[in-house]
Amino acid sequence: MHLSEITHPNQLHGLSVRQLEQIALEIREKHLQTVATSGGHLGPGLGVVELTLALYQTLDLDRDKVVWDVGHQAYPHKLITGRYNRFHTLRQKDGIAGYLKRGESKFDHFGAGHASTSISAALGMAIARDLKGENFKCVAVIGDGALTGGMALEAIDHAGHLPKTNLLVVLNDNEMSISPNVGAIPRYLNKLRVSPPIQFLSDNIEEQLKHIPFVGESISPELARVKEGMKRLAVPKVGAVFEELGFTYIGPVDGHNLEELISTFEGAHKHAGPVIVHVATTKGKGYAIAESDREGYHAQSPFNLATGKSAPASKPKPPTYSKVFADTLIALAENDPRIVAITAAMGTGTGLDKFQAKLPDRYVDVGIAEQHAITLAAGLATEGMRPVAAIYSTFLQRAFDQIVHDACIQHLPVFLCLDRAGIVGADGPTHQGMYDIAYLRCIPNMVLMAPKDEGELQQMLVTGINYTDGPIAMRYPRGNGYGVPLMDEGWEELPIGKAEILREGDDVLMIAYGSMVHPTLQAAGLLSEHGISATVINARFAKPLDTELFAPLARSIGKVVTVEEGCLMGGFGSAIAESLMDLNVVVPIKRIGVPDILVEHATPDESLGSLGLTSSQIAETVRTTFFTQKPVAVGV
Amino acid sequence: MHLSEITHPNQLHGLSVRQLEQIALEIREKHLQTVATSGGHLGPGLGVVELTLALYQTLDLDRDKVVWDVGHQAYPHKLITGRYNRFHTLRQKDGIAGYLKRGESKFDHFGAGHASTSISAALGMAIARDLKGENFKCVAVIGDGALTGGMALEAIDHAGHLPKTNLLVVLNDNEMSISPNVGAIPRYLNKLRVSPPIQFLSDNIEEQLKHIPFVGESISPELARVKEGMKRLAVPKVGAVFEELGFTYIGPVDGHNLEELISTFEGAHKHAGPVIVHVATTKGKGYAIAESDREGYHAQSPFNLATGKSAPASKPKPPTYSKVFADTLIALAENDPRIVAITAAMGTGTGLDKFQAKLPDRYVDVGIAEQHAITLAAGLATEGMRPVAAIYSTFLQRAFDQIVHDACIQHLPVFLCLDRAGIVGADGPTHQGMYDIAYLRCIPNMVLMAPKDEGELQQMLVTGINYTDGPIAMRYPRGNGYGVPLMDEGWEELPIGKAEILREGDDVLMIAYGSMVHPTLQAAGLLSEHGISATVINARFAKPLDTELFAPLARSIGKVVTVEEGCLMGGFGSAIAESLMDLNVVVPIKRIGVPDILVEHATPDESLGSLGLTSSQIAETVRTTFFTQKPVAVGV
Repeated sequence: MHLSEITHPNQLHGLSVRQLEQIALEIREKHLQTVATSGGHLGPGLGVVELTLALYQTLDLDRDKVVWDVGHQAYPHKLITGRYNRFHTLRQKDGIAGYLKRGESKFDHFGAGHASTSISAALGMAIARDLKGENFKCVAVIGDGALTGGMALEAIDHAGHLPKTNLLVVLNDNEMSISPNVGAIPRYLNKLRVSPPIQFLSDNIEEQLKHIPFVGESISPELARVKEGMKRLAVPKVGAVFEELGFTYIGPVDGHNLEELISTFEGAHKHAGPVIVHVATTKGKGYAIAESDREGYHAQSPFNLATGKSAPASKPKPPTYSKVFADTLIALAENDPRIVAITAAMGTGTGLDKFQAKLPDRYVDVGIAEQHAITLAAGLATEGMRPVAAIYSTFLQRAFDQIVHDACIQHLPVFLCLDRAGIVGADGPTHQGMYDIAYLRCIPNMVLMAPKDEGELQQMLVTGINYTDGPIAMRYPRGNGYGVPLMDEGWEELPIGKAEILREGDDVLMIAYGSMVHPTLQAAGLLSEHGISATVINARFAKPLDTELFAPLARSIGKVVTVEEGCLMGGFGSAIAESLMDLNVVVPIKRIGVPDILVEHATPDESLGSLGLTSSQIAETVRTTFFTQKPVAVGV
Repeated sequence: MHLSEITHPNQLHGLSVRQLEQIALEIREKHLQTVATSGGHLGPGLGVVELTLALYQTLDLDRDKVVWDVGHQAYPHKLITGRYNRFHTLRQKDGIAGYLKRGESKFDHFGAGHASTSISAALGMAIARDLKGENFKCVAVIGDGALTGGMALEAIDHAGHLPKTNLLVVLNDNEMSISPNVGAIPRYLNKLRVSPPIQFLSDNIEEQLKHIPFVGESISPELARVKEGMKRLAVPKVGAVFEELGFTYIGPVDGHNLEELISTFEGAHKHAGPVIVHVATTKGKGYAIAESDREGYHAQSPFNLATGKSAPASKPKPPTYSKVFADTLIALAENDPRIVAITAAMGTGTGLDKFQAKLPDRYVDVGIAEQHAITLAAGLATEGMRPVAAIYSTFLQRAFDQIVHDACIQHLPVFLCLDRAGIVGADGPTHQGMYDIAYLRCIPNMVLMAPKDEGELQQMLVTGINYTDGPIAMRYPRGNGYGVPLMDEGWEELPIGKAEILREGDDVLMIAYGSMVHPTLQAAGLLSEHGISATVINARFAKPLDTELFAPLARSIGKVVTVEEGCLMGGFGSAIAESLMDLNVVVPIKRIGVPDILVEHATPDESLGSLGLTSSQIAETVRTTFFTQKPVAVGV
């Protein structure tokens, strides 16, 4: 049996350990080749090859449901659930998604992308199963990093209280999220990892006790109690936390030993109620280069398998926004002891790992815990510190209530830095940073800004640090800047709520926000070739808006276009429209941005093109909306 | 010393236990009298009188910081921090807030209203303190209910990993949130409550061991290990979970024994690193009626102190929206085994306690865990169940990411029922249900509806149950309906995205949403007295909008007014404006709703009046905006 012949995971039934080892080898090979070619998550999948095969050999996947947390460790799952032949399309437009997706396979029982959701989802399935009187297994596979997320702990609290609800939680403990884990729970798991497995010990101890004469022979009630107590004590208090929370704890088990895994899962399935199997895995297992740099090989752009190196860019690229953000923040923090950098397991992604290296005392990585991150920042702010929380736009959704309740209602100067705002590319719909303008704009006391390029990011960073009247947020895109000149110091603060005019023209007023400023400026250039002269404004702030500047212009020019890399529903263009309405400036407004759809995975350029957000498309939209002889079409 | 003389909590220093008991008595008296007169939270505050006094006697409140979770148990705190004389204004307009508020007192170090935030905030203060090289105590007082919230667990995970950061967590364990607690953590706490306190036992055991000759005298290394082990074993594994997570656990301590509390807190302050003191309290302590009905007396409208009964309403009121919701859902569920009711510790508030009584198997209270609630619901939906999650608008903010990531991206038919949407009255800014239209509208695949009255709520409930294409949300207000006829069965489903015309007129088009439909209709009646004839539309849906109906009307009538009980930024009016813009219907639009401010506590009528949302104010706004001879004013 070869991997290529497996189209249904039940084909694993009856295979010998030796045969499974062969399949494991082929999975690793395919996994490595594909990610080396297309890029994608590397370490997580390589770490769970045996876990996946062993688990699936003990399940009937026509009935049983497995929910994979985050989904980036589910490449082996994809390879044995009918997607082998399409696997080379991984993370490419119209190809296989990099995470799980219900529409992609009947074996993807629950989609994912964000961490810590799997136990909740699997428990929901289990409760439904019992209500329907059906009988199948519900399994959540969750990483140790994801286990520190509050909602996973909420789910454990709930499941542990339901002794009659069969649920298997497989804890894939690779000692990492993207970065090495922080927090008391990972430390506790680590302690468990080095404990001898419980199941072997207990027999052992029973035996040992028999050979301690004065215990074995004791008969007085006190001594009997002592003996009983010793029995329990002698077994290391492995899994005590989980046991106290109502789970049967089994483990730790070697996550790369198929035999041990299979017998452990078989045993676990016989337990009633909530069970947790603690599997110790190695991220990147089987690819030595990744095993030795587990953080670096969490995910990879295309690389050379032999060397592990990515091909050097054909020409040097401008620095990423994240890099400019981190470098500038470090420079600022070196001169301002109030600055504290906070992230939630995104140290490498946000560039803050460099901050950690330079200023470790003022770097706080809370783990996958965005809610806590924001309220912690609010607490820091009450003491006069300047907390800068760098979190991806999509993950900050987790902290929406904390932003409302702890930052905005209290006017506390928490500085939110939203990396990966807008289109994110291959990570797809779960990771698009589409909603932040809409969900932050509606909260009183919030200030929103977005730089047009990495140079303006530096200025906005200074602006945010100096702003102490309440919370302030800056969104910036994934990827590289424009290569504009950067400064090492002496950045000037921008006035809050003030926009800048970049180009003047009489025919149309184009107001752009953040990453769409330069494309809009280019679009204006293209429009001028059609004899259409545009005024272009870099809004800088989505809240408060510089209505003073653009309302008179809107009134005199009479046609308004807004451009943003975010959802149109309630977004930046909507804000502009509201402010004009409120001033009774009644003019046609064309809002360009992301319509009310999910944006699937593709390259950022492909996504921007399909959304009409390239400069030539923007120009064309403006032309056809306002400058054709035909009446303006009804319909979007 | 009397309570009335205490204006600074440090005045408690040096008072004898007897004197403190006298103060405790006076606090209870004032607390009871005030809540009996004004209404407010009763049980939580009465339960922490001794806890507050003992804690404050051991702190220097000029330096030390105490963060109270939720804040509804902080009335005793308020009474001894300079607010005794104003306490009779509790929860009244311009009076003392029902929760904590930084602007109200320098002793309110962190505001609250939602649960589970205190450890994060206090830890932020502690980290700031250490960075600044200062030296004061940071204390979080958190209830056992709030401890099940994921962010509190995230904070424990973080704090437990910082052995050098002094932080005291006082666990106020009254075995309740609003309702009796559910979940494995509360069950574990309950186990701890009935364990003997650890500090007394350990000495005891050391002593006992000395008297067991064959242990006391043993010398071989194995036996030495046995002895060491027995010592640890004999101490009940009290607090093991907290200890494993890096906290020093002290307790349980009798929360109504001042002497014990004071010595425990004094001891706790001597420990370095994170410490948890587990205090067992009784909700409603000192008022027998409340002690015997701890759920019923969590919070109260004005009542008779002798009987505990609220005055009967002068005339019978129509049923609340919550009651109609719960009754109708029960009727539907009795005939539809797919329906599962979910709430997050809001069983009484949402009316679902009745559902629990009738259909316990299909009632799920997850505790204070909104995130888990929504993803659990999504899991149930994958199995063909119809999960109905009833959660207050303000608390659903906690689950924003789960709504995006697990419900909307996956098109899963989770039915969100947002109780307390809009103005909530005396609970103030932390509880206003202002943002839901904005934060839900921006997510693809979401359907939003709001009934004009409790009769339409019945229809929308049926509509939501029958809608299986994806997530759907219904918002409805706090308080009583209009007394419209209700049906016991045979409700008709409404077509998704279709509005209804309630009144026709040529001068202005008024589009209202949910609770604002009837006031808008009344406003139209008032306008007709001025010779202004209005078309009034009950939008029913904020997404999708019935653009087909109102776009031609907007075009022909030429003046549009939108009315909503929610934030104007990105709200319903903004949605209407967007859809008209997109169809190139360029007409003046006046959006009426809640401006971009925090709405402070007051009665709902006072709030509505101050926001211009009464029917006469709506009429006046329409008249002055569109129908005066003067040119329309520039400015909001």
